[in-house]
Amino acid sequence: MTSALSTSLDTVLDHVDHTLDASVERLFELLRIPSISTQPTHAADCRKAAEWVRNELEKIGLKAEVRDVRWSGPGHPMVVAHDNGASGPHVLFYGHYDVQPTDPENLWKAPPFDPRLTEDPSGRKVIVARGASDDKGQVMTFLEACRAWKDVHGSLPLRVSVLLEGEEECGGANLLPFLKENAAELKADVALICDTAMADRTTPGITTSLRGMMGDEVVVQCASHDLHSGVYGNAAANPINVLCQALAMLRDADGCVTLPGFYDGVREPDAETRAQWRKLFPTDETLLGEVGLSVAAGEKGYSAIEQTWCRPSCEINGISGGYEGEGFKTVLPAKAMAKVSFRLVPGQDPNRIRETFRAHIRAALPADAHVTFTPHGASPGFEVSRQSRFLPPALKALTDEWNVPAVTMGCGGSIPVAGEVKEALGLDALMVGFAQADDRIHSPNEQYGLESFHKGIRSWVRILAALAEAD
Amino acid sequence: MTSALSTSLDTVLDHVDHTLDASVERLFELLRIPSISTQPTHAADCRKAAEWVRNELEKIGLKAEVRDVRWSGPGHPMVVAHDNGASGPHVLFYGHYDVQPTDPENLWKAPPFDPRLTEDPSGRKVIVARGASDDKGQVMTFLEACRAWKDVHGSLPLRVSVLLEGEEECGGANLLPFLKENAAELKADVALICDTAMADRTTPGITTSLRGMMGDEVVVQCASHDLHSGVYGNAAANPINVLCQALAMLRDADGCVTLPGFYDGVREPDAETRAQWRKLFPTDETLLGEVGLSVAAGEKGYSAIEQTWCRPSCEINGISGGYEGEGFKTVLPAKAMAKVSFRLVPGQDPNRIRETFRAHIRAALPADAHVTFTPHGASPGFEVSRQSRFLPPALKALTDEWNVPAVTMGCGGSIPVAGEVKEALGLDALMVGFAQADDRIHSPNEQYGLESFHKGIRSWVRILAALAEAD
Repeated sequence: MTSALSTSLDTVLDHVDHTLDASVERLFELLRIPSISTQPTHAADCRKAAEWVRNELEKIGLKAEVRDVRWSGPGHPMVVAHDNGASGPHVLFYGHYDVQPTDPENLWKAPPFDPRLTEDPSGRKVIVARGASDDKGQVMTFLEACRAWKDVHGSLPLRVSVLLEGEEECGGANLLPFLKENAAELKADVALICDTAMADRTTPGITTSLRGMMGDEVVVQCASHDLHSGVYGNAAANPINVLCQALAMLRDADGCVTLPGFYDGVREPDAETRAQWRKLFPTDETLLGEVGLSVAAGEKGYSAIEQTWCRPSCEINGISGGYEGEGFKTVLPAKAMAKVSFRLVPGQDPNRIRETFRAHIRAALPADAHVTFTPHGASPGFEVSRQSRFLPPALKALTDEWNVPAVTMGCGGSIPVAGEVKEALGLDALMVGFAQADDRIHSPNEQYGLESFHKGIRSWVRILAALAEAD
Repeated sequence: MTSALSTSLDTVLDHVDHTLDASVERLFELLRIPSISTQPTHAADCRKAAEWVRNELEKIGLKAEVRDVRWSGPGHPMVVAHDNGASGPHVLFYGHYDVQPTDPENLWKAPPFDPRLTEDPSGRKVIVARGASDDKGQVMTFLEACRAWKDVHGSLPLRVSVLLEGEEECGGANLLPFLKENAAELKADVALICDTAMADRTTPGITTSLRGMMGDEVVVQCASHDLHSGVYGNAAANPINVLCQALAMLRDADGCVTLPGFYDGVREPDAETRAQWRKLFPTDETLLGEVGLSVAAGEKGYSAIEQTWCRPSCEINGISGGYEGEGFKTVLPAKAMAKVSFRLVPGQDPNRIRETFRAHIRAALPADAHVTFTPHGASPGFEVSRQSRFLPPALKALTDEWNVPAVTMGCGGSIPVAGEVKEALGLDALMVGFAQADDRIHSPNEQYGLESFHKGIRSWVRILAALAEAD
């Protein structure tokens, strides 16, 4: 890096440090909007969040618009922004402004949309609110980095486009057609996706493989209405019994998923990657200890981190049937429901797995039991090319900021956009994020470390500078 | 029967016919009180229902009191009444004034505590409300029979005591100690229990065997809080998966319960009884067709009616965990819950079965999974002596009223009081009821046929006369 550029970078980093309070206050404004995308009652809040980020992007100096989507689902809008002032490589930043539901509400220590800066038991400063980490806090690291560049130098060091989605937490079925329809406008040299975590508290990382997901809702119905378990118990098919039996057969005693062909196409991690991960997570408890667990629960023969970063899973995310209230009710319900998801790794076909899953459930049903299915998303796993010319400078920028060598890593979550920008725009993606494993994303008391937010902004300031020089 | 008695009986029966509208209106008053015993918010309603029946018993001419209970649970009071005017045998009538919860509310066609006289699709007149059949309608058949005797003759044909409970639907743990403490007062020659059904729409019956029940609530906890299934899925133990696997193993492929020793002490029905039941229920569909089912779901080798009347069961009555709302949430919950009940037949020990059930669940848990149990009642199955001198005249009275030979039958439900009056008072019980299999007890749109109510009152008028002559 030239000395002039180095000075110009330091000035921006200093500006980030001195304006952090205002950056936190802007994040809080966004966190106060309850943009829960899966709940129809929050549709107006989703639009409000879209308009809020559009306005911020315009204040920063980008040309920004809220764009309607129309292909399927709830139709929460996209936000698209461009800054064409600079020359050099063109980056497309992606994040999402929608958040998960907040249940169970009673476990939140403060209202989920009343963000607070507080201290965790170890004295670390954390921002607590739904979306603090996933993904509003992460989105704002990038926006604040752009603002700092603009404030200090009046321009960004390279061409920047921004795409913010409002349906990431509810299937995101509008993203791919939107990318395809607007491919000419959104085409860039590389995508920057900020929706992932660091390797651990001190080690920055770029995620190069992601799990996809296939979600399905299963409703089993037996009798035409709820029955008394004394009058009918034993003789009438019980949909809860039926559902439990069908679901229990999805994994064998070794934790392997039993669907035929489920592991077809799944590749083992290479020895070097396994060794690097083992160094980060010497025992299963390194990953699991902070959530009160100690033993990897899935396939025998794989460590906990391997089970989440490169092995497919099968989880029941919700189940419901019969009497769930206080006391006891001797009911044989007419229906029972489960929400099941499969996290998929590169090589697995989500649609084929949906078919084998449904065939498994149908085959497990006894006489008089009927099933209906509702799909909830299907995205394949994804691997980023390690040959991208943008990967080394981004790793270097992260290493400079955190003073710890940045690593490449897997991610257990599903970030369909990585595969979709590849499919629609032909772009590789750098997945850079500053979340921590204990951020409680999707759970009560979600948090984002103030350090993640602060050094996240600084990291982007450095990455933008580093990518401007990549060629 | 002497001619004088016959005339006096006919006069009472005529009076029942002519005052039926007023009888229905009184039943409606009781049905309007939402006496849901398992929900603490309805405690005052339970007391209100107790006071209402106490007042009616006094209007009829019995000496009646509301009596507090103190041993355990919610403590809804007992109602005790006596009529000592007549000589002859002494009967103790039992019923309960409490009702089941009403969920799911949205499936009720009218509010559950706004009783209506309406017609079912076949044109049959039915009373629709929570408790219409179980047990307020049945209780009122006896009270109205007593009222008719008193109205016409100024006295009952034999000594009558009445005991009405308010905790039958929530465990009823206070009944046995109450019976024991008041044994001298409540001791009679025979108990009359009105909480059962007819053999079919036209065939009256006296139930001589009942299933007991052991209920247990199971909560499995794994992680310390809800987790994101992307970040932790596969590696973190999922309590829904764990619970489904543990519950699925409770029955084998032939529908048999797998707990060790579960069938110890279970007796097969005799050939004559099986033949009588086969005549009433020629196919499984005879029992199951009206609830939309066709095949007996339990143990292979037993008909649907045998499975409910004389075989023990294992049913999951409620299950809950993770995200149950609209859409999808990729959560790995910290906890999952199931409510499980075992219907037990004479010879099975509820407490030993609770122990083997809990041992089964504990043995099925993987590392990092923890379980807590909450008991919800334990009562053994029960058989009434067929040698009782009161059984033949009661069968005869029912046969006279319905013009179809009355049968002895089993009952799949649990009516702990039958065993408890035997234990505490040494009394045999005649279990006589007029409910129908399609009364939707414990379900939305519970109903009681107007014919059940009307001919039920007439049946008790006849039974009281018949028992007065038994010696």
